[in-house]
Amino acid sequence: MEALFPDSVVVTNESKIVFLIIDGLGGLAMEGKGGTELQVARTPNLDDLAARSICGLLDPVAPGITPGSGPAHLALFGYDPVKWNIGRGILSALGIDFPLEENDVAARGNFATLDTEGKIVDRRAGRISTETNRGLCTKVRERVDVAPRTEYYFEPVRDYRVVLVLRGEGLRDDLTDTDPQALGVKPLACQATDPRAEETARLVNRFLAQAQEVLAQEERANSILLRGFAKYRRYPSMEERFGLRSLAIANYPMYRGLARLVGMELHPLCPDIEGEFLALGERYADFDFFFLHVKEPDSRGEDGDFDAKVRILGEVDALVPEITKLNPDVLVVTGDHSTPSKLRMHSWHPLPVLLHSTYARVDEVGRFDEISCAGGGLGRQPMVNLMSLALAHALRLTKYGA
Amino acid sequence: MEALFPDSVVVTNESKIVFLIIDGLGGLAMEGKGGTELQVARTPNLDDLAARSICGLLDPVAPGITPGSGPAHLALFGYDPVKWNIGRGILSALGIDFPLEENDVAARGNFATLDTEGKIVDRRAGRISTETNRGLCTKVRERVDVAPRTEYYFEPVRDYRVVLVLRGEGLRDDLTDTDPQALGVKPLACQATDPRAEETARLVNRFLAQAQEVLAQEERANSILLRGFAKYRRYPSMEERFGLRSLAIANYPMYRGLARLVGMELHPLCPDIEGEFLALGERYADFDFFFLHVKEPDSRGEDGDFDAKVRILGEVDALVPEITKLNPDVLVVTGDHSTPSKLRMHSWHPLPVLLHSTYARVDEVGRFDEISCAGGGLGRQPMVNLMSLALAHALRLTKYGA
Repeated sequence: MEALFPDSVVVTNESKIVFLIIDGLGGLAMEGKGGTELQVARTPNLDDLAARSICGLLDPVAPGITPGSGPAHLALFGYDPVKWNIGRGILSALGIDFPLEENDVAARGNFATLDTEGKIVDRRAGRISTETNRGLCTKVRERVDVAPRTEYYFEPVRDYRVVLVLRGEGLRDDLTDTDPQALGVKPLACQATDPRAEETARLVNRFLAQAQEVLAQEERANSILLRGFAKYRRYPSMEERFGLRSLAIANYPMYRGLARLVGMELHPLCPDIEGEFLALGERYADFDFFFLHVKEPDSRGEDGDFDAKVRILGEVDALVPEITKLNPDVLVVTGDHSTPSKLRMHSWHPLPVLLHSTYARVDEVGRFDEISCAGGGLGRQPMVNLMSLALAHALRLTKYGA
Repeated sequence: MEALFPDSVVVTNESKIVFLIIDGLGGLAMEGKGGTELQVARTPNLDDLAARSICGLLDPVAPGITPGSGPAHLALFGYDPVKWNIGRGILSALGIDFPLEENDVAARGNFATLDTEGKIVDRRAGRISTETNRGLCTKVRERVDVAPRTEYYFEPVRDYRVVLVLRGEGLRDDLTDTDPQALGVKPLACQATDPRAEETARLVNRFLAQAQEVLAQEERANSILLRGFAKYRRYPSMEERFGLRSLAIANYPMYRGLARLVGMELHPLCPDIEGEFLALGERYADFDFFFLHVKEPDSRGEDGDFDAKVRILGEVDALVPEITKLNPDVLVVTGDHSTPSKLRMHSWHPLPVLLHSTYARVDEVGRFDEISCAGGGLGRQPMVNLMSLALAHALRLTKYGA
C-alpha cells in the first residue's frame, strides 16, 4: 500500500504543538513491583491529562522491532524511519553541532589503548577526560594529512569519544567498522563492502595509520577505533514539510543532533529537567512546535533500576503543569521507545501515547500507562502517524482529495 | 511507509518458539448458541494462558480478505502473503513430497467422468480409490510423451486427485484451467493469458489429448481436469531468514507442503491430535521453532457443525499442558484463518491470538476468544507481523538503527 504523508495537505495557522518525549518511557511489569514502571509511578497530572485526551499505543518502527534512538525520533518527527534511517556517524557529528555538508562521510570513534602487540586492552583508553581528548584531536589534526583533495575533521565529543568527518568528491559509506568491539584483538582494517567505496576505505586506513604514529607515545590513548560510517544527506526540514518553526529542548547530544537534522532550532543546554520545562514557557511565543526531550527514564531503565525509573517518572509528572498552563493547542506525551528495567535495554514494546486537544475524541482511558492506553481511541499505530495526527488536531491539515 | 522485515536484525540464541495453529480457529456467534464456538467451548487452559499473555487479533492478509490456506500460513511464517502468494498446483505438488525444481510448472488435477458427448458427468470420477488412481497414473506416464525437451511427472495424490508437473526450458504459468468446475459441459482447452505462455499451453493440451486416448476405455476415470497452474520458485527458508531450525508437526498434505516450502523439517504423520502434541515433546531438543498444526476445527466449521467445532476446541484445549509443561520461551496460539460454522467456509474475520513469554507485556484479557482478544495489547495486526513479534519476545532480534 502506498503511504500517505501529510505534506501535501499542510496549511499554517497560529496553533502551538508540544511533544513531551520521555525517553525510554515504556516498561514491563517486574515481579513484586505491582505493574510496569508507569503503572507503579505516581503520575496524577499525566493521568488527569489522559482522562481528557485520546490515547493509544505507538510502534516506533514496526511490531517486534527494537529501534535505535535515530529511527525512533525520526518516526516521532513524521519521517519514515526506514526510508530515512540514519547512520551512527552522522548522528554523532550532528550531536556536536558539526556543520555537515551534503555527501560528507562521518564515523564515530573511540580513543583506545593497545598493548605492545597491538591488541586492544581498553576500548575507552581509560576514559580519558574531554580535555585530554581535545588536545589529542588537535595533535592529530596538525600532523595527519589524508589526501590532497580530501578534507577531514577530527573532533572530540566527550570523554574518549570522537567523530571523524571526511569531505571530498565521490566518498562513500559502504565501509566496515575498524572497531572490533572486543578486547584482546587488533583493530580491524576498514574494508569496502562495495567496490566503489574502495577509495574511501583507503583514505580511512591512511588516516588511521598516520594517527597511530602520532599517538604512539601516548600511555592510554594510543589508538583510534572507528565505527558507524555514514554519509550525510540533507533532510527536508519540518518547516519545509509541515510549516512548523520548531524548537528542540534537549540536553543530550544525540537528540540535539536529530532535531538539527530536521531543521529544528536548538535551545541552549538547560541545567536540569525542570530547566527544560521552564525553557518551553520562555520561548513559547517564538515557535509553532516544541520537542521537549527528557532523557533520564531511559537511563534508569538501562541501569535496570525499576524504582529509580518510577521515581523519575513521578518527577517528570510533577512538571507537566508547566506545559498545561500554556494551554497548547495540541499536547502529545509519549516516548521514543520502551526501555523496560527488566530488560535493561531498548525494547520493541509499543509506547503509550496521549494526545490532548480541543478536537481530540476523548476515549475512556483514565490512566497514562501501557496497559490502559492499549484500550484507547488511537488504537495501536505506527509512530510515524503521530505527526499527522498532531497536525490534524492543530487544524494544520486541509482536506485530501476533492 | 517502507516495509521492514525482521531479517536484517536477526540474531540467534537457544530459545524455543512454539506456534500452536488451530486451523479455522475463528468463528461467529450463532443463534441459540450463546456466542462464538470459542466463547462456548470449555477452554480453561487457553483462558489461563491468555490471562498470562498478550493477546490481540490478526488479519491473515488484509481486513475483509478471506485467505486460502496458502497465504494464511505464509503470513504465519512471516512471509508477505501477497508477495509470496503461491499457486495451488505448487501446493499440491509439495503436499505429496514431490521434489520440485526451480521453474517447474505444476497443476492440480482430478480424474473425471465424461459422457459419450464428452461432457463432464462426474468431476471426481466416482471417487475412485487411491490405488486405482495410482494404476492410472502409471498407465498415462507409460504411454504419453509431451515433447522432446520437456519432462513431465503425473502423480497420484489421494482418491481421484492428481498432480501434473512440467519441467523444461521457458515454461510459464499464465494458463487458464481446463476444469470448468461445472457439470454438463466439456473440459476447457488450456489457454495462455500471456503470449509467452502459448508454448506451455500447447504442451498441456498435448498431454491432455494423449491422456484422454489412454483413458478412453476407463469406465469412470476417462478424463483429466487440470487447474491452478503455478510455477515454482524457491522460498528463502526460515533458517536462512530467521536462523530458526524448524519442525512441522502437521497431518495434512497441504500444510506439510507449506512447511516444506519454507524449509521446515517434517515430522512423520501422527496417529491423532494427541500424537501431534506428544511429538512436540519428543523432538523438543532438536529444533528452535515448532509449527504444530491441528486441522479438525476447520473441518467441523466447514461442515457447519457448531457443536462439533466446540467439542474439538475443548479437546485441543485439554492437550495444551503438553506444550506449557515444556515451558517454551515463546508460545503463540492462533489459527490460520476463521472458519465460522455459520458460514461453512473460510472467512475474513480476524483470528484471536495469544503470545506467552516472560517479556510479554501482559494485558487485561482473561479469556481466549474473538471478543476478549479484541481488547488485548497486540491490538489488531496483520498476521505477517506475528513472526517479528515472536522473534522479538525470544530476544532473537537486535536493535534497528543507531
